[in-house]
Amino acid sequence: MFAVTILGNNSAVPAFDRHPTSQVVTLDGANYLVDCGEGTQIQLIKYKIRRSRISHIFISHLHGDHYFGLVGLLNSLSLLGHSQELNVYGPAPLKEIIELQLKVADTALCYPLNIFAVTEPATLVDNDRVTIKCFRTNHRIECYGFSFTEKKQPRKLDPDKAKEYEIPSSFYDRLKDGENYTRKDGTVVANELVTVPSTPAKRYAFCADTKYDENLLPHIMDFDMIYHETTYLDNLRERAESRFHSTTRQAALIAKKAGVKKLLIGHFSSKYDTLEEFEAEAREVFADTELALEGVCYEV
Amino acid sequence: MFAVTILGNNSAVPAFDRHPTSQVVTLDGANYLVDCGEGTQIQLIKYKIRRSRISHIFISHLHGDHYFGLVGLLNSLSLLGHSQELNVYGPAPLKEIIELQLKVADTALCYPLNIFAVTEPATLVDNDRVTIKCFRTNHRIECYGFSFTEKKQPRKLDPDKAKEYEIPSSFYDRLKDGENYTRKDGTVVANELVTVPSTPAKRYAFCADTKYDENLLPHIMDFDMIYHETTYLDNLRERAESRFHSTTRQAALIAKKAGVKKLLIGHFSSKYDTLEEFEAEAREVFADTELALEGVCYEV
Repeated sequence: MFAVTILGNNSAVPAFDRHPTSQVVTLDGANYLVDCGEGTQIQLIKYKIRRSRISHIFISHLHGDHYFGLVGLLNSLSLLGHSQELNVYGPAPLKEIIELQLKVADTALCYPLNIFAVTEPATLVDNDRVTIKCFRTNHRIECYGFSFTEKKQPRKLDPDKAKEYEIPSSFYDRLKDGENYTRKDGTVVANELVTVPSTPAKRYAFCADTKYDENLLPHIMDFDMIYHETTYLDNLRERAESRFHSTTRQAALIAKKAGVKKLLIGHFSSKYDTLEEFEAEAREVFADTELALEGVCYEV
Repeated sequence: MFAVTILGNNSAVPAFDRHPTSQVVTLDGANYLVDCGEGTQIQLIKYKIRRSRISHIFISHLHGDHYFGLVGLLNSLSLLGHSQELNVYGPAPLKEIIELQLKVADTALCYPLNIFAVTEPATLVDNDRVTIKCFRTNHRIECYGFSFTEKKQPRKLDPDKAKEYEIPSSFYDRLKDGENYTRKDGTVVANELVTVPSTPAKRYAFCADTKYDENLLPHIMDFDMIYHETTYLDNLRERAESRFHSTTRQAALIAKKAGVKKLLIGHFSSKYDTLEEFEAEAREVFADTELALEGVCYEV
């Protein structure tokens, strides 16, 4: 499964039981944490997401509502006996902040921690399941979005078809590797006849905090799902502009121009006690919009 | 009212819906925040404690479960338009940590923030309502407790008595200031005849994280209430010793030897899902023990 679970959907100040930004991208059982606002470790417990499965953490920028929960989570993982390597990616000063806080507490983490400074658009992770890239967004301070591109999986064996073509089961592994089967009489059973395509590779992008900026488009073009912030409703477009944030219609317009299949919106200002209008306004421009609601898991 | 509201009663790792250490000491409408673990600003909202009334924050030590919520709270106060001066007291490196995090976020707080390095046992605050002192406790890193001594209030006017002695109401303010009233015939009405004593000045101490240490006693002798950590039940005395923490019986013994009136216990290890045994064990040594429960306000 390739999915995104929202842990926090509010902007700067917690309010109305909404928490600061954090979400978990789950892909084939691995958890990638994106942003880590204050209280994220408590949200992880609440929504039963296994902290021990987190191998990578991505911090978009160093406004507190996107990372004040990070050092607490790192600490807790150590106290809980985490042993796997953990890779953290964020703007350069993040390393100094974390190391200073560990030093004054006289804390040595019990697992290997690597903190990487993200600087330019780059590929951060490239393994057999996923490619994760970062791209600059347009915010008041250095800020990055992250894109997750699933690797295309090999075709899957169709056991009924394989039996129908009388292929011995000892050859199944080679079918899974893409080989054709050659009978004793020299006739060939093409691999495509006894395998089915796996689900197509999917793509998701977290667009972080940003003002409306079409420079994002090349990084998210034709994606299956994107998350784009909508701090304000569209009548506060000037305020959004001055604070390097986006409105509902601006996020929806980015989704439309990028030709994505689904838009998640979040990072709602604390001035709003309800969210219905966010959804309604965005859907006027881009129908396949959903509110990023805390605790909800959205399949890509 | 002189009271303590518990915002978090757990030790290092949040668990069982218990939060890391934080409590609010309320005295005559002013809120003094003691420790500020991650999520404190959310607990303040939950328990309807006015953040704007916080003028002083005391951080016992720089283990994360005692201060990781601080910079988020400072940030939020600014975003909420706080304008009053805020004084923060804690071990020296706290200033560097906070200033670094504000700098990388390009944040200028909209209120005056003073961060004081606590180093030796000292008087931190001395105003017309309270004296607040710090004292060293015995923990793995530099750590302080804080004592709150209410100032003795002047006697209160008893209007019925004042009328009975035929004192003109224009003289009432001077009675409140402690003056005697002299009649035209030269006879004197002693102030004590027409005023009543105010409630006696009370004392509360937060003893932070500490192993069992009788050096604390002079700082809390005969206090009305103290908070003392009990990270472990008494069968884990060795573990407590090695980690510079206390057990139930050890906290109770300190309370008993100090001759205090009431003991609050907290900072429970995440290994315990229920707290009844903590109360029972401590009460065997010191009867007037109460669990520090989140959201509960304990009058001093």
